This record gives sequence, structure tokens and C-alpha cells, in this order.
Amino acid sequence: MIAEYKPYEPLLLAIDCIIFGFDGTQLKALLIKRGFEPQKGKWSLMGGFVQKDESVDDAAKRILDQLTGLHDIYMEQLHVFGEVDRDPGGRVVSIAYYALIKIDDYSKELMESHQAEWFAMDEIPPLIFDHKKMISMARERLRQKVANYPIGFALLPNKFTLPQLQALYEAIYETELDKRNFTRKILSFEILQKLEEKEKESSRKGAYLYVFDDKKYRKLEKDGFKMM
Amino acid sequence: MIAEYKPYEPLLLAIDCIIFGFDGTQLKALLIKRGFEPQKGKWSLMGGFVQKDESVDDAAKRILDQLTGLHDIYMEQLHVFGEVDRDPGGRVVSIAYYALIKIDDYSKELMESHQAEWFAMDEIPPLIFDHKKMISMARERLRQKVANYPIGFALLPNKFTLPQLQALYEAIYETELDKRNFTRKILSFEILQKLEEKEKESSRKGAYLYVFDDKKYRKLEKDGFKMM
Repeated sequence: MIAEYKPYEPLLLAIDCIIFGFDGTQLKALLIKRGFEPQKGKWSLMGGFVQKDESVDDAAKRILDQLTGLHDIYMEQLHVFGEVDRDPGGRVVSIAYYALIKIDDYSKELMESHQAEWFAMDEIPPLIFDHKKMISMARERLRQKVANYPIGFALLPNKFTLPQLQALYEAIYETELDKRNFTRKILSFEILQKLEEKEKESSRKGAYLYVFDDKKYRKLEKDGFKMM
Repeated sequence: MIAEYKPYEPLLLAIDCIIFGFDGTQLKALLIKRGFEPQKGKWSLMGGFVQKDESVDDAAKRILDQLTGLHDIYMEQLHVFGEVDRDPGGRVVSIAYYALIKIDDYSKELMESHQAEWFAMDEIPPLIFDHKKMISMARERLRQKVANYPIGFALLPNKFTLPQLQALYEAIYETELDKRNFTRKILSFEILQKLEEKEKESSRKGAYLYVFDDKKYRKLEKDGFKMM
């Protein structure tokens, strides 16, 4: 480090990940039992420290990989939480990232080895430090984001029905949406491709399954759209 | 620091501020000549280091105060820039904030003592490190933000005309807007209060001056609105 920087005090930089999943009805967050002091055994977001030879984004990817076994996840930097006394273990500033995963992709073994559990938004237990604030901000950001970008689909199975898609938006917004308006609007973006198959578990008549039109989806993701 | 945190390497955390101003025609950014090594004398964003006893937001406020003499500025955390080699002086991760100020509020003396200058967006000189990337991201965020929140007004004088307001949005979006649509839309939010006074410098007939309805403005700022 050069002389001009020396008078300043170094600190530890942490990453905390808010991992969202959707079980068909509820928006959920993945939490783990913290494995080390301080506050060992308490519920916590998944996290870790930025290391010497990695960028902060690479650190976030590494931590998410290690803890979920999943790659190429939708993930976005959320906010830096940097109150002086936020971590009783030392001066640690944390960069929160939020990620969207398909609940079924997350393996049972990893879940057990990390003592991880999914919690619905209104059932989040007490969390260490400022992690509850991180989740609140991530929910708010997710709401803003899905209104403008088609990222919510990262939470759905690859094939999904329109009622499932609507249920996802309703869970994120915590409000009921008019079925006809929703269907008209979502189809108008022309990012969905209707399949021949039907999903028959949830109703006798069944509902058609859809997938994304990947190319149009990517274009919209780049340009933004007004979902609501 | 507790034992569990000790194996991780501390780093320096910096703040860099993208300060936007509007001169009536162009969106501009305030840059300074860097006063220390490395890259002393090169154009740079205003910045500094997070200190031991301050939160990251407090550090950003302090730095902006020191360098501009202005308080209660609109300021928002933008993004963390954390590539390993971004700063040749050492491992420094930087949190970028962007701020909106009224150009006329910024004192000539401070400007001189910091060798600061305003640059139009298409005249930004070569900058140190990743500061150009920071400005690009801040412009993009500003565009998204003014479409949804009435924050752009922080860049205007307290009393302004509708043509001035339109010029601001055109500068931010880099596109011409239809005058009639713009006026209709902006008035429909009912956040402007028309004054008896006219601004007579820019045309013989003059244009009415407006100020904000502070209460409605704050409500919209909280709820968000769709400007465009």
C-alpha cells in the first residue's frame, strides 16, 4: 500500500446474500444457522468475507456457489450496510446481494449440511445484526425490479402456467391482481411461448404450460419494460 | 476483532461521489484534480476513505460536505466497485454515491481551492481508475430514477419555468420531448405551484415561474410516480 493510504484504517468487507425462492404460493428467503461466533447458532443470511484476490462480485458468486451448489444464478448487488457497530465481532462492512433461485434446484444435502431453511416473508425468525433490514430492502428492490424487468421468472420452474406466473407476482407485490388484466398484459410483451402440454395437477381441465422466448426475454431484460 | 474473523485480510474502503449539476442546457459532473499519489494531478471524482468511527453513509456525507460546503444534498448509494486491481495504490474497494446539486450553490472559492471543474457529459476528460465507469452507471441510474421519482428538481433553481424543467429532462434523457405532452404530464402530478412572477430573460413574453408543493413532492418522492 502506498504511503498516502497508510493513515486510514483497513476494515473487513463481508458479503451477505438474500436468496429468494417461490414455492408456488409464497415468496421465501433461505436462511442458515450461523456456524461461528459471534452469535453462533442464530439465524442468519448466507455470507462470507471478501478475500485478497477476488473482486467483490466474484466473492458474492463464490459464496453463493459454495452454499447452494448453484451457478449462473440471477444475482444483483443491493446495498452496502456500513454502520460502525453493526457487527459485534469487529469493524465489518457488508455488501448485500440478492439472488433468485428455483427452490427445487437447491439440493436437500446442501440444505442439511448448512442447516438451511426456507422461510416465508411473514415467518422470518429473529436474525443476527442488520440482516432483517437487508431482507426488507431486498424485498422492496425486488418489487421495483419485477415491475420493470422480466427477472421474476428466475423464480419459476422452466415450464409454468399463467396462474403460476400470476401467483408469483401476487406473492411479490402482496396483492391480488385481476386475472384478465394480468394475462392480457403479460401476453402483450410476447416473451412467452405456449406449449402443447398442459399442467393437470391443479385443476381437472388443466392449464397450458409456457416457456420463455429466450431471445425476446434477454432483449426486454436489457431494455426494461413496464410490467405493472 | 474476534478470532474467527482474523484469517481474512482487511482492506481500505473508499467513497467516490458523482456530483451532477445542470446549467440550464447540459447535465454536468463535477471533477477535481487529484491531490495525492498515485495519479496525482489527474482528473478524478471527489472521494476519500471511510474512517474508523463513521458509517459508510456518514463518510459519504462528510466527504461531500468538505468538498462542496453543501449540506442536505440529495445523495444516494450507487454501487460498490471492487475489482482487485482497480487502484494501483493498494487494495481499495470503493462505494460510489451520486449527488444532485444546484450549480449556483457551489461556491467559487471551494471550486478554486479544490481545482474543481464542471464537465458536460460528452466532454468528460480521461479519469483515474474506474471513475468513468462510475459516471456511466450514475447517469443510467439517474435516468431510471427521474422516471419514477421527482428528484430531478434538486438540480433546478428554487423557482423555475416549465421550459427549464423540460430542458432538464431532455438533458438527462438525451432526447427531445414533446412540449405539450410534457407539460400536461408534469402538471397532472400536481406537485408544482404556479407563481405570479415571470422569468423574462429568455423571451419577451416571459414564462411563469413555478415552485414545488413541498408536501405533495415528499409524498411522491416516497411513493414513486411514473414521470415518462
